[in-house]
Amino acid sequence: MVEPEVLEESGEKMSKKAAKKRAATLKKRLYRKKEREEATSSSSSLPEDESFSSNYGDVTPKSAAGRSWREAVEGKELTDVSYLVEEILGSEVSLRGRVHNHRLVAKILFVILRESGFTVQCVVEEARVGTSMLNFVKQLSHESVVELIGLVSLPKKPLTATSQQVEIHVTKMYCLSRSLLNLPLAVVDAARSEADIEKSVKDGKPAARVLQDTRLNNRPLDLRTPANQALFRIQCHVQIAFREFLLSKGFLEIHTPKLMAGSSEGGSAVFRLDYKGQPACLAQSPQLHKQMAICGDMRRVFEVGPVFRAEDSFTHRHLCEFVGLDVEMEIRMHYSEIMDLVGDLFPFIFTKIEERCPKELESVRRQYPFHSLKFLPQTLRLTFAEGIQMLKEAGEEVDPLGDLNTESEKKLGQLVLEKYKTEFYMLHRYPSAVRPFYTMPCEDDSNYSNSFDVFIRGEEIISGAQRIHDPELLEKRARECGIDVKTISTYIDAFRYGAPPHGGFGAGLERVVMLLCALNNIRKTSLFPRDPKRLAP
Amino acid sequence: MVEPEVLEESGEKMSKKAAKKRAATLKKRLYRKKEREEATSSSSSLPEDESFSSNYGDVTPKSAAGRSWREAVEGKELTDVSYLVEEILGSEVSLRGRVHNHRLVAKILFVILRESGFTVQCVVEEARVGTSMLNFVKQLSHESVVELIGLVSLPKKPLTATSQQVEIHVTKMYCLSRSLLNLPLAVVDAARSEADIEKSVKDGKPAARVLQDTRLNNRPLDLRTPANQALFRIQCHVQIAFREFLLSKGFLEIHTPKLMAGSSEGGSAVFRLDYKGQPACLAQSPQLHKQMAICGDMRRVFEVGPVFRAEDSFTHRHLCEFVGLDVEMEIRMHYSEIMDLVGDLFPFIFTKIEERCPKELESVRRQYPFHSLKFLPQTLRLTFAEGIQMLKEAGEEVDPLGDLNTESEKKLGQLVLEKYKTEFYMLHRYPSAVRPFYTMPCEDDSNYSNSFDVFIRGEEIISGAQRIHDPELLEKRARECGIDVKTISTYIDAFRYGAPPHGGFGAGLERVVMLLCALNNIRKTSLFPRDPKRLAP
Repeated sequence: MVEPEVLEESGEKMSKKAAKKRAATLKKRLYRKKEREEATSSSSSLPEDESFSSNYGDVTPKSAAGRSWREAVEGKELTDVSYLVEEILGSEVSLRGRVHNHRLVAKILFVILRESGFTVQCVVEEARVGTSMLNFVKQLSHESVVELIGLVSLPKKPLTATSQQVEIHVTKMYCLSRSLLNLPLAVVDAARSEADIEKSVKDGKPAARVLQDTRLNNRPLDLRTPANQALFRIQCHVQIAFREFLLSKGFLEIHTPKLMAGSSEGGSAVFRLDYKGQPACLAQSPQLHKQMAICGDMRRVFEVGPVFRAEDSFTHRHLCEFVGLDVEMEIRMHYSEIMDLVGDLFPFIFTKIEERCPKELESVRRQYPFHSLKFLPQTLRLTFAEGIQMLKEAGEEVDPLGDLNTESEKKLGQLVLEKYKTEFYMLHRYPSAVRPFYTMPCEDDSNYSNSFDVFIRGEEIISGAQRIHDPELLEKRARECGIDVKTISTYIDAFRYGAPPHGGFGAGLERVVMLLCALNNIRKTSLFPRDPKRLAP
Repeated sequence: MVEPEVLEESGEKMSKKAAKKRAATLKKRLYRKKEREEATSSSSSLPEDESFSSNYGDVTPKSAAGRSWREAVEGKELTDVSYLVEEILGSEVSLRGRVHNHRLVAKILFVILRESGFTVQCVVEEARVGTSMLNFVKQLSHESVVELIGLVSLPKKPLTATSQQVEIHVTKMYCLSRSLLNLPLAVVDAARSEADIEKSVKDGKPAARVLQDTRLNNRPLDLRTPANQALFRIQCHVQIAFREFLLSKGFLEIHTPKLMAGSSEGGSAVFRLDYKGQPACLAQSPQLHKQMAICGDMRRVFEVGPVFRAEDSFTHRHLCEFVGLDVEMEIRMHYSEIMDLVGDLFPFIFTKIEERCPKELESVRRQYPFHSLKFLPQTLRLTFAEGIQMLKEAGEEVDPLGDLNTESEKKLGQLVLEKYKTEFYMLHRYPSAVRPFYTMPCEDDSNYSNSFDVFIRGEEIISGAQRIHDPELLEKRARECGIDVKTISTYIDAFRYGAPPHGGFGAGLERVVMLLCALNNIRKTSLFPRDPKRLAP
């Protein structure tokens, strides 16, 4: 495979033209060498081995058009590491990835190349590539981005440390971007499961545990672990399924403004700002505007967009900024239509994730083991009163007209799982006292409301309800809830020009993914989380 | 079709049970009547006509479970107004919509029912429904939400004022939500084309012209016009096609935070806020975070989300908050890969809109006439220098290393249309001086950069480039541009742990739809626009 003279084109004898070209090439090489030395001035100066020198080197942006790299890889499609399987044994492939790890055994350097969470063993033999190239590769820092050309081969014994079961016999390698030598975290460490850490402690060789703040402070590094690569693919697929289902049911995707005049209608903690001299705040939900869209005859709408909450909630499941999955729809006959939709939508999402992301779920499980969510084809629906009754029978003290706290929700989740064999269910007819003033009271008993919450693994994931579309009733309810009607006049006025009965719900994308994969912290499923203390990176 | 005794079930003789039921019904009717009088106390009291009284009435939220309305429509699927065609002549249908208009001719009331921009003529005959019901319907205010039951019939002569060519002979009608009598704008007026207004002036009967601020101040009303109903369906379909194309090319949809520490890296006008004691601002683009996602090995990402600009730009094409369509991708060989993607993506979107939204495009055209966008199957690509040359040849004075102003862009658009017969093209290799510091200079001439703009109908719609992925070069370029490197250290540091060559682009969803439909103002394609003076509703 060694090509001592790649620069001499197509094996033809050296003509005058070729000789001229060759001279120019040598000049370029010298230039490249100089540049490389400048770029890697921290690394030790390497002895140049002329015959192999075009097979490796740094490709700085300025030299990206440099001849050797171009000639080596141009026209050769880069192959994804995940595509490296036994079926293509013997092929020459061109790969791009990061130096995940390397290990020198005698005169053979084993480099683990990683790309988007997939890894392959690459073998760099001094006998094949020469001393200089071996040294060049050896001193590449972890996480540096490289491109290489090599032959897909069968390893002498099965590989356990890489995702791919073939190895690559490297002939050429170029570095596109060098990483600093001192990394704030090693991706190898960040990818380790808790079980592996515990095992390492038992074995007397305790492995490093990367703390959450270290991860989040260095999120671009942390995102490189297989589990994180998989989690954000799953997140993307949750959205795809969410949209797919709703669009098929005649919903329209909308975008409502995040900048709102005054302070928000709900009265809870909002982020305030100055909008060209006017007081403004960030929308803590698209509630008002999605309802206005319904008043604007849009009939069925949904939005996927940021939602801002300024609450000082330091919990495993609250963020100051998250991605809201919001739905609002006209009600044709009864508010149960909203529950019917939720009851079909989420099982659809769960099923699609299982179907479309088996590899990704496996990658998450390897670091964070979990069992697949148990859910019924027909979503279980209990009334709030039934839920209270179940808790009472289990000896829990709960207020029949109050809200459930997180513990009671967890407990009820267990009881429901035991009795109905599902970790996904709905609780509806919540007491009016624990829902916002704009929630429609039940027709038969205004102590209860046309509202519901949905739970995954015992944690609340969705909140929904029919809204009051009658401005007089809305004013009345606001007053009963002690709200100054003047402060919410914009909201109430939206219903004065004819409003159809309507309702909807909201969920948080990060929370859906967290609970789907039974993760212990919502910061794991937010790309760049924002919490009361974290505003970077 | 008249059913004098709908409350007597299935025509059976009145048994004792039925008699008892009947008594209960009468009691309920009285209650309903009382309620209706309360609800419509402003309207004149109507004489009750007992035999028809269950055929009409107000359905307040409290009486939503009221028997007559339920019995009348329950189990009967509501038919969309747009589905009312000659093929279903003779069917009894149940409809929901708004009172768009009504007109009394002799003892026949013609009500135009409107639903999501579609209209149908409904005929209420006194001889069929009784005097009380006729009076009830007559005094319903425009924009009130009603449900009716009627027979699909052929009108005596072709209808010109409605979208549907059949008419409905009404037997029952219920009002679900009354609109205030005094509307800030009439939907009929808001839906009128400029040509119709001009014609009305010529005819000596000048029609009302609804001004933009009146529309936007009352957006939920304004959104009810056929053109607006269509525009936001088109907007939704632009997103669908945008996603469809990118997902098929292996892109991942991500969500980056909108809350950023400090002031933004770009230095231009941002919205500032206090984040729990820390200075923060709203992201004016997902630039930094989408690049970090690439550094996090995500390879190809896109985002659809809000972008905030605090500039005081009072133009027809700037908003303070808009929906960004952002893309970032690893470059495999050359930055032209990004242009290849844009060159395929947008024609894909244009084609899909033509295919999927013919009715919607027609609805927009009826109010705002425009010709379909001219574009080539292979997107035209000119260098900036070529563009300058074309302008010079046409006698325009332009700086070869400066930026094009809006007028020059318009002019170039005309020249390109004349010469190449396309209103969609790319201009690339922009002078480095007019692009952000992080733009990769051209390999052969650093006065130019690996960057491009894309134009629709002579207006800039997309801006894209290869980014500098080398931290040293990035620092150098920042200094050359007079930027204090310390203020952008977070940004630069993101590239210190290995970064692949990458680039991307951004477009604004509202602007895409505006230019696709050749509209004159971006506020028309933003659901609830935010500009330097507008923060509501």
